[in-house]
Amino acid sequence: MSSSLGTLFRVSTFGESHGIGVGAVVDGCPAGLRLSEADIQPQLDRRRPGQSDLTTPREEADRVSILSGVENGLTLGTPIGLLVHNKDQRPGDYDEMDQVPRPSHADFTYQLKYGNRASSGGGRSSARETIGRVVAGAIAEKILYDEWGVEIVAWVSSIGAEQASGINPDTISRAQVDGRITRCPDPSAAVRMEALVREVLAAKDSIGGVVSCVCRNLPVGWGEPVFDRLEAMLAQAMLSLPATKGFEIGSGFAGTRLRGSQHNDPFVMKGDRLGTVTNNAGGTLGGISSGEPVLFRVAFKPVATIGQAQQTVDFAGKPVVLEAKGRHDPCVVPRAVPIVESMAALVLLDLALRQKVRE
Amino acid sequence: MSSSLGTLFRVSTFGESHGIGVGAVVDGCPAGLRLSEADIQPQLDRRRPGQSDLTTPREEADRVSILSGVENGLTLGTPIGLLVHNKDQRPGDYDEMDQVPRPSHADFTYQLKYGNRASSGGGRSSARETIGRVVAGAIAEKILYDEWGVEIVAWVSSIGAEQASGINPDTISRAQVDGRITRCPDPSAAVRMEALVREVLAAKDSIGGVVSCVCRNLPVGWGEPVFDRLEAMLAQAMLSLPATKGFEIGSGFAGTRLRGSQHNDPFVMKGDRLGTVTNNAGGTLGGISSGEPVLFRVAFKPVATIGQAQQTVDFAGKPVVLEAKGRHDPCVVPRAVPIVESMAALVLLDLALRQKVRE
Amino acid sequence: MSSSLGTLFRVSTFGESHGIGVGAVVDGCPAGLRLSEADIQPQLDRRRPGQSDLTTPREEADRVSILSGVENGLTLGTPIGLLVHNKDQRPGDYDEMDQVPRPSHADFTYQLKYGNRASSGGGRSSARETIGRVVAGAIAEKILYDEWGVEIVAWVSSIGAEQASGINPDTISRAQVDGRITRCPDPSAAVRMEALVREVLAAKDSIGGVVSCVCRNLPVGWGEPVFDRLEAMLAQAMLSLPATKGFEIGSGFAGTRLRGSQHNDPFVMKGDRLGTVTNNAGGTLGGISSGEPVLFRVAFKPVATIGQAQQTVDFAGKPVVLEAKGRHDPCVVPRAVPIVESMAALVLLDLALRQKVRE
Amino acid sequence: MSSSLGTLFRVSTFGESHGIGVGAVVDGCPAGLRLSEADIQPQLDRRRPGQSDLTTPREEADRVSILSGVENGLTLGTPIGLLVHNKDQRPGDYDEMDQVPRPSHADFTYQLKYGNRASSGGGRSSARETIGRVVAGAIAEKILYDEWGVEIVAWVSSIGAEQASGINPDTISRAQVDGRITRCPDPSAAVRMEALVREVLAAKDSIGGVVSCVCRNLPVGWGEPVFDRLEAMLAQAMLSLPATKGFEIGSGFAGTRLRGSQHNDPFVMKGDRLGTVTNNAGGTLGGISSGEPVLFRVAFKPVATIGQAQQTVDFAGKPVVLEAKGRHDPCVVPRAVPIVESMAALVLLDLALRQKVRE
Repeated sequence: MSSSLGTLFRVSTFGESHGIGVGAVVDGCPAGLRLSEADIQPQLDRRRPGQSDLTTPREEADRVSILSGVENGLTLGTPIGLLVHNKDQRPGDYDEMDQVPRPSHADFTYQLKYGNRASSGGGRSSARETIGRVVAGAIAEKILYDEWGVEIVAWVSSIGAEQASGINPDTISRAQVDGRITRCPDPSAAVRMEALVREVLAAKDSIGGVVSCVCRNLPVGWGEPVFDRLEAMLAQAMLSLPATKGFEIGSGFAGTRLRGSQHNDPFVMKGDRLGTVTNNAGGTLGGISSGEPVLFRVAFKPVATIGQAQQTVDFAGKPVVLEAKGRHDPCVVPRAVPIVESMAALVLLDLALRQKVRE
Repeated sequence: MSSSLGTLFRVSTFGESHGIGVGAVVDGCPAGLRLSEADIQPQLDRRRPGQSDLTTPREEADRVSILSGVENGLTLGTPIGLLVHNKDQRPGDYDEMDQVPRPSHADFTYQLKYGNRASSGGGRSSARETIGRVVAGAIAEKILYDEWGVEIVAWVSSIGAEQASGINPDTISRAQVDGRITRCPDPSAAVRMEALVREVLAAKDSIGGVVSCVCRNLPVGWGEPVFDRLEAMLAQAMLSLPATKGFEIGSGFAGTRLRGSQHNDPFVMKGDRLGTVTNNAGGTLGGISSGEPVLFRVAFKPVATIGQAQQTVDFAGKPVVLEAKGRHDPCVVPRAVPIVESMAALVLLDLALRQKVRE
Repeated sequence: MSSSLGTLFRVSTFGESHGIGVGAVVDGCPAGLRLSEADIQPQLDRRRPGQSDLTTPREEADRVSILSGVENGLTLGTPIGLLVHNKDQRPGDYDEMDQVPRPSHADFTYQLKYGNRASSGGGRSSARETIGRVVAGAIAEKILYDEWGVEIVAWVSSIGAEQASGINPDTISRAQVDGRITRCPDPSAAVRMEALVREVLAAKDSIGGVVSCVCRNLPVGWGEPVFDRLEAMLAQAMLSLPATKGFEIGSGFAGTRLRGSQHNDPFVMKGDRLGTVTNNAGGTLGGISSGEPVLFRVAFKPVATIGQAQQTVDFAGKPVVLEAKGRHDPCVVPRAVPIVESMAALVLLDLALRQKVRE
Repeated sequence: MSSSLGTLFRVSTFGESHGIGVGAVVDGCPAGLRLSEADIQPQLDRRRPGQSDLTTPREEADRVSILSGVENGLTLGTPIGLLVHNKDQRPGDYDEMDQVPRPSHADFTYQLKYGNRASSGGGRSSARETIGRVVAGAIAEKILYDEWGVEIVAWVSSIGAEQASGINPDTISRAQVDGRITRCPDPSAAVRMEALVREVLAAKDSIGGVVSCVCRNLPVGWGEPVFDRLEAMLAQAMLSLPATKGFEIGSGFAGTRLRGSQHNDPFVMKGDRLGTVTNNAGGTLGGISSGEPVLFRVAFKPVATIGQAQQTVDFAGKPVVLEAKGRHDPCVVPRAVPIVESMAALVLLDLALRQKVRE
């Protein structure tokens, strides 16, 4: 029971990868916002598989429909129902795995938790579940931009050991990010990443990576101490995504090696407001946005489904060799970019509305 | 508005560092549990300042009182009120900072968010706020251990660049952890860490570090997909702590450099249950506990309050040199150990109770 | 932002009367429950307009579709998406009312609250919104019956001044209730009620009434003191229905005229359990189900839309005479019967699951 | 697990009647509000027993202490901890009842729900639990009045069959209400009520009654469709009070006998805003405040504890005659007046803050 997120901008997602469809209900969207499917479809297209020969060839031309909450192109302030129909997903590909919990998948824990599970393809643990987040996040993004000018841009900062460098979080744009198949805006790293992913694909293997994200133009004051600090809400949102293993904000783990005299961000006048000289904090102080850009990184493990043979056991404990037949992404990180942005938008808008109560 | 955490085991904390006291109300504690202050005081003592010459010399002999919810030594199933009185905290030490937002503290954001703030010492952003978490966490720990045998042990795995090695998460105990002032159970690293902290203290500086934590003996099934996954709830809980900058579970950020064939955890029979050969997942699959130990790490930045002079500006933008006069911890990480354990306990128990609904 | 109800069995409804459709997402439904549209459709049919010549002649052959959460006829434990498409509702009937807030409708308050509203027919304040509640309630009812044998039966106990008598709450069945167009199982009162409704219809007027409801076979222990008492949750649920003006449980308002010696329900052995001789309490003690039948009544005001001319003013304050052209129910109470049952089921199941945590 | 109420102004109460104390934590109180114990104590004094010879002679000079959230007389925006110490309550009076569930008390259901209960006096089902609501409600009232001019006045409109008449909800004041021991501002009814209560007291019996309440000066727009309508939230709040059996708003149950043409409230200009000629709605339309006074009534059953002998059975089913020895209120209704006001304030402020998000 936890397919809902948010206090004032509340998203409830639904849908398995092989049912009629996936979607979301968004409760708390302000009234009078100009909104149509065209505002939502672009992010959905960015998360879609099959965008390049590096990603899964399954065709999922996902189209979102608004079921409620909008009339004459304007939001009513009532819940917005959003639905994306599923296409036939060739469930046969998964059939033989029914008796075998796939290593590092959720088959095992879903079966034991619920005593039951979607017969194929991961059900709610599938990447397809993130569609509900993306369609809701697109609405949140629009409000954040229209009302506060907030910009959210994520990019691939590493795949395997290949690291991007030289990205300027103050100026990086989605156009720059989307200029490369890998969504890494450092051109030379992007080339190395592409080569790496091709190599991994050829080896019927998979590889992990890191998505970085910047949120610009936040006013001071978003984030609710103590349990709903901005970074705490972001951390929850990001770790709720499939395949995530870590979250860091600002100086992150590297910052633990610094001294206070190096790490502290002194204040300085920036135009007519106080800002900080450095931004080791990553844009929050005491869990509240400081007016500096919010900067965080999310770790994605390598995709669990691989074509290589794996020695494991079935539910009864009998040894078995597993070889995934369906084609799958060797590296999910480029497609994770819009999903990370969507989750950030959901978190920020909810905290923005919670702060509006004080104004 | 966010000083509450949890769905079925719900903690609401209150209190500033310089008011009458700090505490918590715990709603959802099962009835019939044997409970007294003696069950809570030990973790409070472990979090107390002044435990060694490495930590702040302020004497805070914090004593917890149970205000409600317990009668004749047994819980009633009703809310448990918990109060720890504050002692005089020499607020004079902070007076001159009133007009100066301390770098990397919450003074600036609290002032702009609330239009007002505790006159001194951080108010709810102070480390003292964590007392409410620790007294509630101690109750959660007791229930987890009594009902499921769950053990939670945290330790210091790095301070600055000094890293512990050779810690066995399957066997590490609190007694081993508490054997060293630094709470690092690797003796040789502990010696280096102590030397480092003394050096930092002498330099009127501070230093960060990492706390690792293991939760053992969880049954399969805790964690609520999709937004309240076990790792998502842990990430929120840990990033809600003052001074935290990162969270990782299992293979974490390092795991992003592995291939799926290396990272996947194959299943194997362990006695009469399925387990995994490796535990790169860190004890969860699809956001649900897998039966393997839950392993995570939390990054703590260096303490912001340092004795060294810092160039900054006051609220009006006027340049000022700031030098903290009060004595403060040069390194908060050893004291963070019981706090991390407490937050883990709060998260686990809430998810355990949510899973009980299905049984 | 409040289209969700429940803590562990949580329903989020969506949809306006003139959009694509209305529906609900049910989060927290246990896994492994046998469920199909056929389990839900009957209550939807019972709430449908056009069941007799006494109700609105608009044809709404509402059909529910399950979008997610069910596979091979069994629930997965994941959110159940439910959708009922809208048919063309002849919005033209409402057009001229755009500038006139209809008396005792929500046009006025929606417009001022949201700065915007559905152009016609009430949007979320329309009776059509209750479809989401009914489809979710049907699922809750099935679980309550399958797991605990709980039976919920509502009936019309008065229309205008016509009162039913002689109804036995221990034995009354839905078949008996549905035996009369008015859903009043007292045959002689039913005849008088029918005559009254026909008279009101002829007069282009409307009339209110009271729905009574009994919930049988609850175990002792459902209801969460102090704010989520069983009667408090029922009162919220019932007063959240359109057109409701009152709620009473057990002795209700009449009980305020009794003395304690008359009102107290003494205990007595009933088979192998304690029960009470009388049931003035209405099935709860201290907000917790006592094992006696839960008995409550809900007051429905007369429908606001009437064919008679009404003198009122438009949004600008200009006097105007309003005459509703569309056909509408002269008396909503018979159709409210399954809606009251559905809301009761949602409340009871949520409290049942919350009590399961303790078992 | 339900001792919390509210979404943005959230109250968590704690405390049994015979523990150290009772109190509340208020989360979400705006910062910068002038607040001291003197703002809270008056309502606490109004709910106190022993205000006249008609009420229980137990002396409870309850004094509230603010534990946190206020500094230099101003709120910080952080949680406000509130504590009222218990005095010795002569628990011996209750001892012999340990094996006997008192008729129409919560002993029976608490014992079966929790497997345990406070040894005496009702624990959380005791009237003393309402102290936490009153101290929190006093803060809410102050904000409602300071920011919106909202006035909340409750009074006793009936005791037994004695009914008040001629009360003008537009002008009634607390001073008028408190002018009579019975808190009935109709002088002639008050005399009859007093006589009735004395008669009941002499007969070692008890009697019920109805409290009416008006909330004036609400702006249009408070109340969140669909489940958190203003009347739904009020109904929950009132039915969460001990001894309540009914709630009605506006025309209530009597309105069910009216025709739409009689019941509808036509709009009319009132100064520069739209208002309604009549107020059968009771101040809400579609669950949202309409700008007209909110008018509701709450039914209180007779107090369960009576001095008369009662034939009942003990937990084992053995017949027993019960005679309460402690002195108790023969009629709780006058003391319920400030409690009803407090609950109304908690509901209104929470909805007011939720509406602020839209402004």
